[in-house]
Amino acid sequence: MDYKKESIKLHRLYKGKIQVSLKTKVENKQDLSLIYTPGVAEAVKLIAKNKNEALALTNKANQVAIVTDGSAILGLGNLGPEAALPVMEGKSVLFKKFAGIDAIPICLNTQDSNEIIKTIKNISPVFSGINLEDISAPRCFEIEEKLQRELDIPVFHDDQHGTAIVILAGLINSLKLLRKKFKECKIVINGAGAAGIATSILLNEMSPKDIVVLDSKGIVSKKRTDLNFKKKEILKFTNQNNISGNLEDAIKKADIFIGVSKPNVLTHSMIKKMNDPIVFALANPDPEITYLEAKKAGVKIIATGRSDFPNQINNALVFPALFRGLLNNKIKRVTTRIKLNAAKALADSVKDLSKDKIIPSIFDKNYIKNIIESTKKI
Amino acid sequence: MDYKKESIKLHRLYKGKIQVSLKTKVENKQDLSLIYTPGVAEAVKLIAKNKNEALALTNKANQVAIVTDGSAILGLGNLGPEAALPVMEGKSVLFKKFAGIDAIPICLNTQDSNEIIKTIKNISPVFSGINLEDISAPRCFEIEEKLQRELDIPVFHDDQHGTAIVILAGLINSLKLLRKKFKECKIVINGAGAAGIATSILLNEMSPKDIVVLDSKGIVSKKRTDLNFKKKEILKFTNQNNISGNLEDAIKKADIFIGVSKPNVLTHSMIKKMNDPIVFALANPDPEITYLEAKKAGVKIIATGRSDFPNQINNALVFPALFRGLLNNKIKRVTTRIKLNAAKALADSVKDLSKDKIIPSIFDKNYIKNIIESTKKI
Repeated sequence: MDYKKESIKLHRLYKGKIQVSLKTKVENKQDLSLIYTPGVAEAVKLIAKNKNEALALTNKANQVAIVTDGSAILGLGNLGPEAALPVMEGKSVLFKKFAGIDAIPICLNTQDSNEIIKTIKNISPVFSGINLEDISAPRCFEIEEKLQRELDIPVFHDDQHGTAIVILAGLINSLKLLRKKFKECKIVINGAGAAGIATSILLNEMSPKDIVVLDSKGIVSKKRTDLNFKKKEILKFTNQNNISGNLEDAIKKADIFIGVSKPNVLTHSMIKKMNDPIVFALANPDPEITYLEAKKAGVKIIATGRSDFPNQINNALVFPALFRGLLNNKIKRVTTRIKLNAAKALADSVKDLSKDKIIPSIFDKNYIKNIIESTKKI
Repeated sequence: MDYKKESIKLHRLYKGKIQVSLKTKVENKQDLSLIYTPGVAEAVKLIAKNKNEALALTNKANQVAIVTDGSAILGLGNLGPEAALPVMEGKSVLFKKFAGIDAIPICLNTQDSNEIIKTIKNISPVFSGINLEDISAPRCFEIEEKLQRELDIPVFHDDQHGTAIVILAGLINSLKLLRKKFKECKIVINGAGAAGIATSILLNEMSPKDIVVLDSKGIVSKKRTDLNFKKKEILKFTNQNNISGNLEDAIKKADIFIGVSKPNVLTHSMIKKMNDPIVFALANPDPEITYLEAKKAGVKIIATGRSDFPNQINNALVFPALFRGLLNNKIKRVTTRIKLNAAKALADSVKDLSKDKIIPSIFDKNYIKNIIESTKKI
């Protein structure tokens, strides 16, 4: 199948992928008088007395905004709000299909952080959660943090935490298979954007031996003078030996490589320097090393972002079910505990664990209820 | 039927009235690769090259935002954004049911005009029209005008223009029945909020003998020093004899009374002072005079906002079909011509014209295609 051509054909045929539909019938004047004036005034009055009634009398309890400014669409870059919409609609489809959530795409005509925060706060009253999406680093960190401080509904930047949670789940199962522990592992993360930074922060919770993060300029270290506030922040726990250099230098004696960077940067000779290599090559659509090349080079466990090879690391495994749990349990923010529990629940959902099955397939289904359940765990 | 109790029951049962649904199937990995990554990247790239492709490849062409700040909900007042949601969902239902349009409720957490304008501009990229709703006067005028200047999609404040269009349609048919012409008519409009002001402006296009508008302080006249900018603006064409006083004074020799004010303000003795009285008593749910009282007082034609009496003046007759026309024809602003054409189309849709049938019933249907068609007329 030529998926490029077929995808455009499908988008053109249906003119997008989501629509509004009615929960109630409207066939006569009596129906109208209940769903609209005059009957609707009663629902208005109840909510005016008690805002929480909106959760019972409107769709608010099931409604999430997916918000982007189009500044970092997939791996394609800053293409603007209109170009982001196909991705947002795709996410909305996944929200509905896998978790029954009504997710409304909001694509913003501004890339100013304060303006984005203000706009989202302004539109927040009818939503029970905010999924930030495809907003470039380092603005995404500041926007998410400030927004979460000011809103009492969960704010979740999927490119950061969705990715981090699935990676952690995959690593939990990979280490189980190789009978290794996080504390024995040196982890190299190539890429210090939204996904790389969030992954380093979440993996640090597992107390690995060390984490070394690289951006396009090389290893993130205290010697660097060009680091943004978030890269400085992760230096508190990464690169404990304060090494400098490039990927070639970082990869020595690493146990785990996580690529959230660009195609073909991980070579055979680098892999030779690793211990029982676990490689998550997640650049999309072309990974840091292909599944087949990685196998040839002796990688023990290889995961990519691709659906046409085993072990697809796909954040669609997390965000629908996680938000379902957040909404069901009226959780107001996504804590580290919630992220760790979700990763464990996802990892534990693989029943036929093997080197080519470290993560559930998205259509497996039972992982969904496990993640939903996990949001309640203390 | 106790519509108050039944309405709450219905809202609680369904938890609101609208939801997101999918236009495409998602049953396997292949479907996923078309609607989401990697296939979706092709749609992104096409739109990045040409923004207009969003109209063909996403739901944007069929998508309208219904935006409120909750400052003037129905006749109930300033009750905030959450309390506005049942009305917004009701409108969304009507948009879909009568015109197949996907209308997304956006309820804003600000009542500052500039902030509202900025927020709507920020979220505008994925919408093909903006329906402003339940925003109090005189802010609504400024917000609509500024927004329309800055956006190249239609901005339509329904409380103003939807109401004005249906009133004009009803009057066209009323005068036809009474064999009178607008130029012979003195029109009194009681109420100078969004609906009253917009109605005066639209009716002026029919060149009536005079229009006298009243607010809660009395007749809007040049002697008043407490008028907002919009009331001053309508003085250019209303109250040509510069009279002062109250409704008792204004109503003398009037042919038409339009009430967009409050219950029971129009008395028998006032009606006695009118010529062949036409009374549109539109306060909701309790009109300026009831249908039965008006008949008793000798009113020739009476219309109200109620569905349980003849001649319901309901802007739900206009906004769905009008927006369908705007979207179909990619019209960028709602001109006076478009409003006049819609009113005429609505009036002409009544086939069995009589004093108790001056306007179509909302379920009549043929008025819908007539209004859609009218948007194309020059």
